[in-house]
Amino acid sequence: MVSKMGVLKFLSRNMTSFVAQASRDNAILTLARHQSVLSSKLVYSEYGDPPKVVRQEKEELRKPAEHEVMIRMLASPVNPADINTIQGVYAVKPKLPSIPGNEGVGEILDVGNGVTDLKVGDRVVPKLNAWGTWRTHAVCNADELMKISDKIGIVEAATLTVNPCTAYRMLKDFVPLSEGDSVIQNGANSAAGQNVIQLCKAWGIKSVNIVRNRSDIDELKKFLTELGATYVLTEEELRTTDLFKKGVLVRPKLALNCVGGKNALEVMRHLESGGVMVTYGGMSREPVTVPTSALIFKDITVRGYWMTRWSNENANSPERSRMFEELTNLIIERKLNPPKHTLIGFERYKEALSNAMSTKGFVGMKYIFDFQI
Amino acid sequence: MVSKMGVLKFLSRNMTSFVAQASRDNAILTLARHQSVLSSKLVYSEYGDPPKVVRQEKEELRKPAEHEVMIRMLASPVNPADINTIQGVYAVKPKLPSIPGNEGVGEILDVGNGVTDLKVGDRVVPKLNAWGTWRTHAVCNADELMKISDKIGIVEAATLTVNPCTAYRMLKDFVPLSEGDSVIQNGANSAAGQNVIQLCKAWGIKSVNIVRNRSDIDELKKFLTELGATYVLTEEELRTTDLFKKGVLVRPKLALNCVGGKNALEVMRHLESGGVMVTYGGMSREPVTVPTSALIFKDITVRGYWMTRWSNENANSPERSRMFEELTNLIIERKLNPPKHTLIGFERYKEALSNAMSTKGFVGMKYIFDFQI
Repeated sequence: MVSKMGVLKFLSRNMTSFVAQASRDNAILTLARHQSVLSSKLVYSEYGDPPKVVRQEKEELRKPAEHEVMIRMLASPVNPADINTIQGVYAVKPKLPSIPGNEGVGEILDVGNGVTDLKVGDRVVPKLNAWGTWRTHAVCNADELMKISDKIGIVEAATLTVNPCTAYRMLKDFVPLSEGDSVIQNGANSAAGQNVIQLCKAWGIKSVNIVRNRSDIDELKKFLTELGATYVLTEEELRTTDLFKKGVLVRPKLALNCVGGKNALEVMRHLESGGVMVTYGGMSREPVTVPTSALIFKDITVRGYWMTRWSNENANSPERSRMFEELTNLIIERKLNPPKHTLIGFERYKEALSNAMSTKGFVGMKYIFDFQI
Repeated sequence: MVSKMGVLKFLSRNMTSFVAQASRDNAILTLARHQSVLSSKLVYSEYGDPPKVVRQEKEELRKPAEHEVMIRMLASPVNPADINTIQGVYAVKPKLPSIPGNEGVGEILDVGNGVTDLKVGDRVVPKLNAWGTWRTHAVCNADELMKISDKIGIVEAATLTVNPCTAYRMLKDFVPLSEGDSVIQNGANSAAGQNVIQLCKAWGIKSVNIVRNRSDIDELKKFLTELGATYVLTEEELRTTDLFKKGVLVRPKLALNCVGGKNALEVMRHLESGGVMVTYGGMSREPVTVPTSALIFKDITVRGYWMTRWSNENANSPERSRMFEELTNLIIERKLNPPKHTLIGFERYKEALSNAMSTKGFVGMKYIFDFQI
């Protein structure tokens, strides 16, 4: 016999929505009979080790006021930035006490009389950073949320706003790329890196993907190649490659860096004159080193990208809607797949927080709170 | 008694042109009677130590063909890039044998029948890099040269296309700057740095100028302040300054770097979020190191500037004419002054080449060939 949880898990992975729709409709009807809802939320009042400082609290939510909505969360991932924020080592330091969680998908349960652009049953994601997605229900202003398609699964929806958007913007906003151009990236097995590979494949851009050597390197190369990578090279292979010298590939105009240090320097060396390196992470904990000659004579530009800033600056921009539409379509066409993940019940949050930072397997394992379990 | 040479020197320094004009007219009339001119030029056939590999040669020049002009050089400086080019260590490696010299001013002696935009007596500078200014006379296509004002002295004209243009473009092309904005630069006593100071002063931009500590630091500070520097700090003073913390000065949007290494990093730290650091030199011979957090969270952009590339890409651009007009006007208004220099006869080229790279005084001493001595 298949349990309800099992069905929901299956559905979330398979992006089919008809059964889930029926299940949601029931929940909405049930709720509509009540005047208030008891929300369960995670909270922390001091920075520190996440499983220690984060606690669970209950809160009775009132009905939404005129321009407010009530939502129930469906799923929300535990991202590295969430952990770093709780640790107090991230660039964003929310006012404490704070509800953690930056990414996630919810469903509108109730709307105030003045709300016109959202209706009961709509799938939504928060527009702003640090909105606090780790709670079962919330009442907030309608303009804090953005409607997204319900044609994609909840895992895809819950992990849409960080990594796919990061990859999308880095490929769109720094260098004009056309079909046949190439892009080089390190940390290609990162969550954003996997999205870069898939978007490049979808857009006809060749991707050169650099990963660290490891015991299961062949398996990793196979995985990334199947995802759409044009080439996958270890750092050592990159040092001696003649891919560019032999003219097999045009030199990349864009390099994406989430490692830093020597690795970033090696990647930079292969850029075309006038090329741009965009840094969005620093896994090696070493800075980016740029030879003076690369700046002056090769006209290399070194920049950074932070999804949080873009999102906050583009909360209501048409470009944001365009991006979500394009990403959603790619997900529906199965050209963009969700990360490897483990769905976990909200009550088991300590387990999720403890394990989120440990690397499991060559592409990591994302813990996603499934509020329906 | 004042010699003719003395008069010419005086004139070149004092930007007065009436006596020089009469002198030039005589020379032109004298030449017009001849069909050919004997040019003396410097040449090198192998890279190496400049005084050793550079020799002087004579060449008889024919009359200019239809679209050609004949010019005589008036003055040409010995720049560090010239020395590095001859040494074979510069990014530009001319085909050998080559006539060195990238900067200088000449005067049109004769024009071909098809030349319409230049006439006898016009002051000109080469449009392209590696044109070879270290020769007394040349015949070349008219479109290799650009007419400049004869209202500025020959030293100002001979040193116009590298350092003043570098400073101008770096202040114009990377960040939009308005009156009251601030700019920070290291190596502020460099030739380009002195131009940056003067242009900032002329445009109402505050300049924060970083120099190395030295025995005559007070004298250097006084010199740069008189040139127009808003603040002059040593590297050590920069580390502990509260200029920006106290709100005395808005944080700079633009940093100009010709040093690299730790110094560049210190300078970068003071940039406003979203600011740009432009590297145009690397005197410390250390690369530019950029913290990952500065790229991601402070949105710092690191770029490079190379005057040679701009000039080659803008040989005939209207922007180039606009720049020369503006710089010329500033020179006429005495808001932009030529570098400290020594005029030296062309026959004494070995002395000039030997001494050009040695630093004399806190702002260096530029050797300028005066072809009229």
